[in-house]
Amino acid sequence: MTKHMEIKVYRDLMGENEKWAAETRRLLAENNCVMFNLIGGPGCGKTTLLEKTAGLVAGKLRFAVLEGDIETTRDAERLAALKIPVSQLLTGGACHLEAKMVHYALADFNLKELDIVIVENVGNLVCPAEFDVGEKAKVAVLSVTEGEDKPLKYPLLFREAAAMVLTKTDLLPHLNFNKEVCLENVRKINANLPIFPVSSVKDEGVEKFVEWLINE
Amino acid sequence: MTKHMEIKVYRDLMGENEKWAAETRRLLAENNCVMFNLIGGPGCGKTTLLEKTAGLVAGKLRFAVLEGDIETTRDAERLAALKIPVSQLLTGGACHLEAKMVHYALADFNLKELDIVIVENVGNLVCPAEFDVGEKAKVAVLSVTEGEDKPLKYPLLFREAAAMVLTKTDLLPHLNFNKEVCLENVRKINANLPIFPVSSVKDEGVEKFVEWLINE
Repeated sequence: MTKHMEIKVYRDLMGENEKWAAETRRLLAENNCVMFNLIGGPGCGKTTLLEKTAGLVAGKLRFAVLEGDIETTRDAERLAALKIPVSQLLTGGACHLEAKMVHYALADFNLKELDIVIVENVGNLVCPAEFDVGEKAKVAVLSVTEGEDKPLKYPLLFREAAAMVLTKTDLLPHLNFNKEVCLENVRKINANLPIFPVSSVKDEGVEKFVEWLINE
Repeated sequence: MTKHMEIKVYRDLMGENEKWAAETRRLLAENNCVMFNLIGGPGCGKTTLLEKTAGLVAGKLRFAVLEGDIETTRDAERLAALKIPVSQLLTGGACHLEAKMVHYALADFNLKELDIVIVENVGNLVCPAEFDVGEKAKVAVLSVTEGEDKPLKYPLLFREAAAMVLTKTDLLPHLNFNKEVCLENVRKINANLPIFPVSSVKDEGVEKFVEWLINE
């Protein structure tokens, strides 16, 4: 019973969601702007990655961030402090962003003056991967502290993503984490996924991710 | 529209869920057994905590584990290797366990021969906190690598929990993590929550958590 009701409802929600995602894609195309959807678990380093990205794209790419959170405006404040145009979406309990929320939030930006918008989704390796919010591509973020098995245990995100950022590589000397095994696990799910190992603390690797963003 | 449908459905689901949770509570009470619901983000150290717990309760407490995962039986295999009775629940995409699934999975155990059952929920700091699966108490697991702001950003779990385990404290020297700020943040959400800092790698602190389990 429970199962049945859930399936029925997600189908309805998705129909509605796809309409808003398509509408957003149209709006972005009209304004010559592309959107990326950054997804990863809580505390995997999404906001820090955006802080570092901001420094590297300055003058090359005009970008804005849509911050998705359940509560608090902490992440948005961190980015606003770097003069990045940022808008905060509070889901009030919901575990992911939906296309309609993102569509309305985009009205906060002057899209004509932007090249890219990055959506930082709610910290959650599961649910956000199921929702198209009108992005060009999903980017998976995984920290080395989470363990090399996560791509196998949470395959949907890694299957859907167009790129993956492996964060916190500065902690590798202190962890029992086999990077090769992790990359093999990713390739079992998505054979050609570009993977960018980064250490935001040590300022290593972020430039490769930024290059990818610019080429996209 | 989307919003409305969601609310309506969650209400239905919850009604059904509460019935199964109550049924499970009755079954456990009949067998003089209690259940805990371990909840935390992906890779926060739930399975490792259970491995260490197993070593410390041997001979004092008879326990079994219900492993909740989206895919793979990796965590269940790790625990089975330690001779812990374990049963694997695969949600096949769903982001949390529901009471009905847990109720049926309990049939795998001889409850008369157990003191406690620990449910290791799907790695997700958000959705599992919304679902009562018939447990006596929820236990929140947060790793120091996730950052001190997480209790504020994901308050429901920390409000619902009867205890919190702060894992991976061995990594503190390598992180920009202020433990006092983290504990203050927890207390803003749940003033009297018992907090157990542990390092499973260094075998530190797990015995305090085990004491709490035994007293409960």
